[in-house]
Amino acid sequence: MPQISASRRLRRTPFSEGVEAAGVKGYTVYNRMLLPTVFESVEADYRHLKTHVQVWDVSCERQVELRGPDAARLMQMLTPRDLRGMLPGQCFYVPIVDETGGMLNDPVAVKLSEDRWWISIADSDLLLWVKGIAVGYRLDVLVDEPDVSPLAVQGPKADELMARVFGDRVRDIRFFKFDMFEFEGRDLAVARSGYSKQGGFEIYVEGVDIGMPLWNALFAAGEDLHVRAGCPNLIERIEGGLLSYGNDMTDDNTPHECGLGKFCNTHTAIGCIGRDALLRVAKEGPVQQIRPIAIDGDPVPGCDRPWDLFASGKRVGQVTSAAWSPDFETNVAIGMVRLSHWDAGTELEVETPAGMRRATVQSHFWI
Amino acid sequence: MPQISASRRLRRTPFSEGVEAAGVKGYTVYNRMLLPTVFESVEADYRHLKTHVQVWDVSCERQVELRGPDAARLMQMLTPRDLRGMLPGQCFYVPIVDETGGMLNDPVAVKLSEDRWWISIADSDLLLWVKGIAVGYRLDVLVDEPDVSPLAVQGPKADELMARVFGDRVRDIRFFKFDMFEFEGRDLAVARSGYSKQGGFEIYVEGVDIGMPLWNALFAAGEDLHVRAGCPNLIERIEGGLLSYGNDMTDDNTPHECGLGKFCNTHTAIGCIGRDALLRVAKEGPVQQIRPIAIDGDPVPGCDRPWDLFASGKRVGQVTSAAWSPDFETNVAIGMVRLSHWDAGTELEVETPAGMRRATVQSHFWI
Repeated sequence: MPQISASRRLRRTPFSEGVEAAGVKGYTVYNRMLLPTVFESVEADYRHLKTHVQVWDVSCERQVELRGPDAARLMQMLTPRDLRGMLPGQCFYVPIVDETGGMLNDPVAVKLSEDRWWISIADSDLLLWVKGIAVGYRLDVLVDEPDVSPLAVQGPKADELMARVFGDRVRDIRFFKFDMFEFEGRDLAVARSGYSKQGGFEIYVEGVDIGMPLWNALFAAGEDLHVRAGCPNLIERIEGGLLSYGNDMTDDNTPHECGLGKFCNTHTAIGCIGRDALLRVAKEGPVQQIRPIAIDGDPVPGCDRPWDLFASGKRVGQVTSAAWSPDFETNVAIGMVRLSHWDAGTELEVETPAGMRRATVQSHFWI
Repeated sequence: MPQISASRRLRRTPFSEGVEAAGVKGYTVYNRMLLPTVFESVEADYRHLKTHVQVWDVSCERQVELRGPDAARLMQMLTPRDLRGMLPGQCFYVPIVDETGGMLNDPVAVKLSEDRWWISIADSDLLLWVKGIAVGYRLDVLVDEPDVSPLAVQGPKADELMARVFGDRVRDIRFFKFDMFEFEGRDLAVARSGYSKQGGFEIYVEGVDIGMPLWNALFAAGEDLHVRAGCPNLIERIEGGLLSYGNDMTDDNTPHECGLGKFCNTHTAIGCIGRDALLRVAKEGPVQQIRPIAIDGDPVPGCDRPWDLFASGKRVGQVTSAAWSPDFETNVAIGMVRLSHWDAGTELEVETPAGMRRATVQSHFWI
């Protein structure tokens, strides 16, 4: 691939200096911000992530902050997930839908207090949708992007590394919960979460100025743990079935098509803007859905556009993410498949740049 | 710079095949789509653009389509520019502002008919803001992104090339007007516009399928005109004072700070959401504003983050775009400067990665 041209528009992060010193080799752009994609090689990064511990610059998971008396009401308007039982200190994965039930983002909502929320977003300017809704409905709420840049610590040794920097209390954080921890006199939210299946944390770093001090503290504390800079890993996230907004789903898709029906409480999520549109699909189910798919043969090239899936020459879906898995010795992939052909074991054909290949629908992801 | 990693999320365009065959060397990401930045070299591309004619894949200028009885009302809600006198067939450069008067985008509005508009956007998901407003105000309008990908033909020989493909009638299109032209049985809007000061057109290509046929027709017709693939050129656009949303301005800035006060009819643009917020700045003027700035010395490196401007050691602004201009034999730059130091001829200092340099505020851009 060609080089990426630098400009202010592709925003640097509080950790860019560390990322560059660590020898980043590839970037993508995510929320108009640089997101590393490879350090040593995608396969070497994968092996290291599954063995040791990595520090990830995921500043591009920007926050949309809702603050004020109508914050909770607005948050519920955005998602079909029922938020009534959610407590401060919890993180909820929430599909965000428009008035037609189309996915606008699949972020994590962070409830700081009754009247203060962060939405930790995937790749779309969700801020603009939320601001438009707040203005249009004349809600009593402030909506903006705070100076918060998440830093992830991921891998089997993440607990040990984090305990050395933040104290043993981090070990007690439960999955998708967060608590406040002090670093250099500042209180930071630390959640047990992250875009891998290897376990770990996300630190919501408030203030650009403490970015590099925290980065350096983690590296200094983890030398004997083989800590190194990393990033969301294509192979590992496909194996684990972690979806990517813009790759595996777009605003053309409902949450049910994305297999996120379990996060939709369409009957009780009163106030959700897309609720009416989703009631029917919630009842009858979608006609296509995300599936894990194994692709036979040699390693496939990168999936930079949808690859059509065929059954007896008829198009029945598409693959949108794919990579060779060293651990499972097959090409692992994520695709959207029609109801008629989505049963586990169904054999299809997929048109890759390397030619037509046999593809088999799996019963579950590779975890 | 490192490589850019391919994924479906960084969308390809109807012309990507042609761009790749032409040997694109660099990309940026714009509206989650690939936008070429360099073919031969930025300087060679610049010389060619000013001498011959280039075909640019600017598909990333996505369209937001407004359709329905409330389309014109919604369009006026988005901008402080008074649209009452605008006729079908006209293109208007329109600042788009939020309820605080902050710039959300600086697109070109294309009026197809009273109840059908395109907004040809700069780099932000304006679709989400427009949809949010339409939903919140319960407007009777459809808002979506149509299958339209602009292709620009720019340079001094653009008229000749376009006339060979679309007929001599294209020569009659006046600046920022458009008319309909046939290509392979399809009617396409062709406007005299584009992101350069060398003259030319933008073709609103409706339908992915005719992308490469049109690309190929332009290259076949222009061989003796030395037509080649090009892209918005950093040097030429700074010389010409063409602003870049996300580089030279963000939602922190009002249109008046961006020097776009002439496109704001704050008193008569009734219905504009940011009107109240802009009334005071419209009357009293902004405290900082975009200025052309010359930077002394050798060619500066790329401006990938704001460079602070100083006067007697005090920060008085920042530079956000800069490049060495072969024609003007100086570093040309765009910056935002405080009122106290924005007069033409004011000498400042700018902190570049190549060290502190003398910078001089100019009376006008280099055109």
